[in-house]
Amino acid sequence: MKRVLVATGGGDCPGLNAVIRAIVKRAAQERDWEVIGSISSFDGILREPTEIRVLDERSVAGIHVQGGTIIGTTNKGGPFAWPVKNKDGSWGSVDRSDEMIRKLQYLGIDAVISIGGDGSQKISQALYEKGLNIIGVPKTIDNDLSATDFTFGFQTAVQIATEAVDKLVTTAASHNRVLILEVMGRYAGWIALHAAIAGGAEVCLIPEIPYDIKKVAEKLSSRFNKGKGHAICVVAEGAVPVGGSLTSEESSEVGYANLRLGGVARKLEMELKKSGFEADMRETVLGHLQRGGIPVAYDRILATQFGVKAFEMVLEGRFGEMVAYRHPDIIAVPLVDAVNRPNFVDPGCDLVRTAKGVGISFGD
Amino acid sequence: MKRVLVATGGGDCPGLNAVIRAIVKRAAQERDWEVIGSISSFDGILREPTEIRVLDERSVAGIHVQGGTIIGTTNKGGPFAWPVKNKDGSWGSVDRSDEMIRKLQYLGIDAVISIGGDGSQKISQALYEKGLNIIGVPKTIDNDLSATDFTFGFQTAVQIATEAVDKLVTTAASHNRVLILEVMGRYAGWIALHAAIAGGAEVCLIPEIPYDIKKVAEKLSSRFNKGKGHAICVVAEGAVPVGGSLTSEESSEVGYANLRLGGVARKLEMELKKSGFEADMRETVLGHLQRGGIPVAYDRILATQFGVKAFEMVLEGRFGEMVAYRHPDIIAVPLVDAVNRPNFVDPGCDLVRTAKGVGISFGD
Amino acid sequence: MKRVLVATGGGDCPGLNAVIRAIVKRAAQERDWEVIGSISSFDGILREPTEIRVLDERSVAGIHVQGGTIIGTTNKGGPFAWPVKNKDGSWGSVDRSDEMIRKLQYLGIDAVISIGGDGSQKISQALYEKGLNIIGVPKTIDNDLSATDFTFGFQTAVQIATEAVDKLVTTAASHNRVLILEVMGRYAGWIALHAAIAGGAEVCLIPEIPYDIKKVAEKLSSRFNKGKGHAICVVAEGAVPVGGSLTSEESSEVGYANLRLGGVARKLEMELKKSGFEADMRETVLGHLQRGGIPVAYDRILATQFGVKAFEMVLEGRFGEMVAYRHPDIIAVPLVDAVNRPNFVDPGCDLVRTAKGVGISFGD
Amino acid sequence: MKRVLVATGGGDCPGLNAVIRAIVKRAAQERDWEVIGSISSFDGILREPTEIRVLDERSVAGIHVQGGTIIGTTNKGGPFAWPVKNKDGSWGSVDRSDEMIRKLQYLGIDAVISIGGDGSQKISQALYEKGLNIIGVPKTIDNDLSATDFTFGFQTAVQIATEAVDKLVTTAASHNRVLILEVMGRYAGWIALHAAIAGGAEVCLIPEIPYDIKKVAEKLSSRFNKGKGHAICVVAEGAVPVGGSLTSEESSEVGYANLRLGGVARKLEMELKKSGFEADMRETVLGHLQRGGIPVAYDRILATQFGVKAFEMVLEGRFGEMVAYRHPDIIAVPLVDAVNRPNFVDPGCDLVRTAKGVGISFGD
Repeated sequence: MKRVLVATGGGDCPGLNAVIRAIVKRAAQERDWEVIGSISSFDGILREPTEIRVLDERSVAGIHVQGGTIIGTTNKGGPFAWPVKNKDGSWGSVDRSDEMIRKLQYLGIDAVISIGGDGSQKISQALYEKGLNIIGVPKTIDNDLSATDFTFGFQTAVQIATEAVDKLVTTAASHNRVLILEVMGRYAGWIALHAAIAGGAEVCLIPEIPYDIKKVAEKLSSRFNKGKGHAICVVAEGAVPVGGSLTSEESSEVGYANLRLGGVARKLEMELKKSGFEADMRETVLGHLQRGGIPVAYDRILATQFGVKAFEMVLEGRFGEMVAYRHPDIIAVPLVDAVNRPNFVDPGCDLVRTAKGVGISFGD
Repeated sequence: MKRVLVATGGGDCPGLNAVIRAIVKRAAQERDWEVIGSISSFDGILREPTEIRVLDERSVAGIHVQGGTIIGTTNKGGPFAWPVKNKDGSWGSVDRSDEMIRKLQYLGIDAVISIGGDGSQKISQALYEKGLNIIGVPKTIDNDLSATDFTFGFQTAVQIATEAVDKLVTTAASHNRVLILEVMGRYAGWIALHAAIAGGAEVCLIPEIPYDIKKVAEKLSSRFNKGKGHAICVVAEGAVPVGGSLTSEESSEVGYANLRLGGVARKLEMELKKSGFEADMRETVLGHLQRGGIPVAYDRILATQFGVKAFEMVLEGRFGEMVAYRHPDIIAVPLVDAVNRPNFVDPGCDLVRTAKGVGISFGD
Repeated sequence: MKRVLVATGGGDCPGLNAVIRAIVKRAAQERDWEVIGSISSFDGILREPTEIRVLDERSVAGIHVQGGTIIGTTNKGGPFAWPVKNKDGSWGSVDRSDEMIRKLQYLGIDAVISIGGDGSQKISQALYEKGLNIIGVPKTIDNDLSATDFTFGFQTAVQIATEAVDKLVTTAASHNRVLILEVMGRYAGWIALHAAIAGGAEVCLIPEIPYDIKKVAEKLSSRFNKGKGHAICVVAEGAVPVGGSLTSEESSEVGYANLRLGGVARKLEMELKKSGFEADMRETVLGHLQRGGIPVAYDRILATQFGVKAFEMVLEGRFGEMVAYRHPDIIAVPLVDAVNRPNFVDPGCDLVRTAKGVGISFGD
Repeated sequence: MKRVLVATGGGDCPGLNAVIRAIVKRAAQERDWEVIGSISSFDGILREPTEIRVLDERSVAGIHVQGGTIIGTTNKGGPFAWPVKNKDGSWGSVDRSDEMIRKLQYLGIDAVISIGGDGSQKISQALYEKGLNIIGVPKTIDNDLSATDFTFGFQTAVQIATEAVDKLVTTAASHNRVLILEVMGRYAGWIALHAAIAGGAEVCLIPEIPYDIKKVAEKLSSRFNKGKGHAICVVAEGAVPVGGSLTSEESSEVGYANLRLGGVARKLEMELKKSGFEADMRETVLGHLQRGGIPVAYDRILATQFGVKAFEMVLEGRFGEMVAYRHPDIIAVPLVDAVNRPNFVDPGCDLVRTAKGVGISFGD
């Protein structure tokens, strides 16, 4: 019996379970393969006692419809930087990668599929360089990897953010309010950009295009002057004013970044007052709601494609590579390339031009 | 031609448009009635120039599916306390109710239907006592009026809050986190109570049952000891610890009340640490998302029933009364009774017993 | 250890799992109770080998969000009329009720909770009369039991049917079509009535109000003459023309009843042609889509209340009774009363008057 | 003032309104352009009196969230084959294209944007060859055009079909039934293929892969033998058995094609009986529900991109071309190329391999 171990690392993402299910169902078509899940990313291997779980068709039945990951995840540490408490009570870290590879051999693992984002795939590459038979499946809810056209989870996050905009529009219009919606995106503004277009927002602030609050206020003033008293602003967590930046503490937590940053809302309110408008402004932080819930069909399909392909790459021995989507094909790319090319919003790209084409202001 | 004026007051609520549409469609069956909408509650009457809008079948086509209110609303002031700026820049108020009644006569208005909450219906009663032909339609997203079994908007808010819990459950389970969801309910905990049961939360904190953070921590510790590392706590805006209370400033804003109160999360984290658990806790504030969007079928039906009944009460001259739902009938109750009986969660009621029956802790 | 056996009978219904979960979670609060599920209604008891399943907190975790029933159901036969094949190949039935009661004793079952509709509760009553400690939980997606204000599942079905109307409206309007939607309701038209009001349909045909196709055509002609070229008709499975009736074969299958009946669509088309209108008509049959999927919050809550109450009735020894909802309380009613009072749409009830108030035609 | 005329042709499709809104909002940024909508495709131009509508920002506010098309559509005829009744009562057609071009000149139309599928774009090309300044926007809910990676509407249809599968799974499992879902796709099986993967169906029958009912029965028998008694089969309207074909009448109506074809269900039932399984089978036809309702975010974004690009192509004078999506860019392709390359499911493509990888049978 051959064994492939699956681990999910980093923040959870709609579609993870569909990847796991696809790996298990594809493996079930081979006579001699068994799938093992490591609980809480690679932590399950390193913990004493080891926490793993055999994954068969029964255990993955129907999970493609569920958010999250049935084998758990974590976004702290990893085998190369396992957190340990120093004698003085502070936290340090040790490299347990060799130990982990030995434990995998001991468990009879022939190959590993690591589903995770940028950080996880750097670990995959380092483990591969140490001789581990590892294959990567990219996971980024923020769409910030350029090695693949899209990853699973992103469309679900966009759909959730768009439905939030839809909900805010009616209440904003009824009360003549300016509503600010903070969505995920500390470094990449894709979710904000997509949700602003899909929801029909008036303003979209993203990390890649530093905003001038005066220009945002001008956009709104011009709208108010036309007789429309309400507006929706979609703001990515990591949006910053021209010349500004998030402190490391601010950027270390999910959501609330802009809220704590002094507030787009308050600054905008002051700026609008100068133009004679007393805007009634409110903020909503979407936070963890963007990660959860039932994946949209698009993400379930892409995740299933990734899972099937990943297992087939195991069969073909294509280790050190990562699954990727290049429409309409699912391909394999070297892990080393994949992790070095982030995918940020290019201010001149077609989507930004579309957004400006329908009158959305980026404050630039 | 006879004229009925419709106004929507207070916070917007899913179903308002279905009430308006039902009034207009019912009135269209009478040969000699016209429906007029006052923009932004009664403000539309008092403003110069007057802001009103004729509402015919064409203008209400399809609006029952939309959240908000097509004639706008406001939750500031009213004819008895119209805000005016004093000479020193501070704000005061004047009584413009007589002027408003005269303007309604001048506009040829034969009857008024006022759709609004507790505050709005107090104004309705006062206007009725001054001789205005007025009928009330109750609106409270919080379900805090005892004169009616339910009002429209509440089930939509519960559904949205429940779907938020559903989304949080998968991410909480994947990361072994304790997620705290703050929902509407400054004085009445109905939304929190319903969403906690429907979503399967572990903890539910509501204004009517002051909580002891130690008891909440005990509930979670006991769960952690059974091997389950995640939990969902649904917290009403107005939930307070035993002996605690919201400051008036804290209770004056939508959402974030508990967040600013020092945080259920932080207190719970500290309390759990005492029992040896390092819980990973996160907060989500649902805020304005609860008011918006497409009303669920239940609310559209109830709102349509209210609208039809309200117009028929106009035909019957039942002024000074309010529409109400007593399953399975739509009845009329005196306005004066309606506004004096709030509907809070009775700690001994069947729903609380159900919640405790499935293991939900109220921290009591 | 005491044992309560749970069985779900008849057509599946959103909320069944929430009842099961509530029973299990409530029982877990007692030191000495165990919950057993019989697979496929009482069939699980009668089959050889017996098919039962211990239900603990782990096995019901999260199931309240799922449609269907984790212990399966069936709508064929029952212990009093167990189907057997005769020697000539035809089907007959035998009474295996005494045998079932003996098997329950043998399994150490102290009480039974039977979740099911009219037919199932008749069986419950008969078993109670034979001495079985049995308690009923009403289940009817059609809302056709008058012993309880509502049952779980109904609001989910209404919501699904309403969302179907919402979807059809835009396509009907774009193409100037008349779209006919067949929904559940062979004897009771509640789902059709609710969905027609919530969705804003023009026509609603239900079993309780036989329709005259000429009157339906008049309604549509009058609409076309006003310049509106599209319309939505919601038709219950069991709707019949004046003087008409479903054959027993027609009424024995889910959906398609009216389709096969010759078609409301075709008759309406011919009738409209007489008035000079060439209507473009299409039919959609909602069928099994109405039973499935995630229960709405309302149904999850009611189901949870029923489950908790049912187990508490076991503790109190209130056998021969059924859980019921009388707003805002959950009460117990004698089984014998419950099964003899169906709940049909009264043509003079408030909801029908509301529907007519917004211009919906019943063809009467 | 320059004028661009917009027309939507063929079956309605979620996202049409977002295209219209984007054209209007982009045009509003130019000083001297006006957008005119032709009602019911080009029929609005040819009718007497002409039916057109000025489209300004007010008239398109919020329409991107609505299904259908605010300017109506039709899928009968067109300017080159305008239907006329012959003297004997039969229907013929005449070419009114020259007349239409003259009328457009008379109305001062400088350019035309035609949003429509294969048939509409063939008309666009023919009108372009006659000298009309025309630009195409591709619309196909079936995803059957190879000139563009995707078009708007498709993901919404897939999402609706997937949610239908989700609903059927729970009821199928509770009753141990085989449920058959018929989805759109007379010539291309993309919707069925996507929904089968996303929903986790067991069988998927599409026009491009003729099925052998014996092989489908084998798949189900093997599943039943493993102890799973239920299954979901997703069937495209145009799916045909090996050697079979739809009659022209059968393929001329939306939905019900397979139902009338003799029924996949009945044939499968008979085939399963031969293997000793008495399967309880039911059919559901999704029909018009797939076209309607709120477009998913993906489709709104793509539609907005198409609309902005189309208007910019008008500014650039790129007539005789069609908007297309080549990830991540929006490009222009010659109309003549676009209409001649349909996009069918290649039985060897990655998606079919994915589907087979998770055990879905195509009956081949």
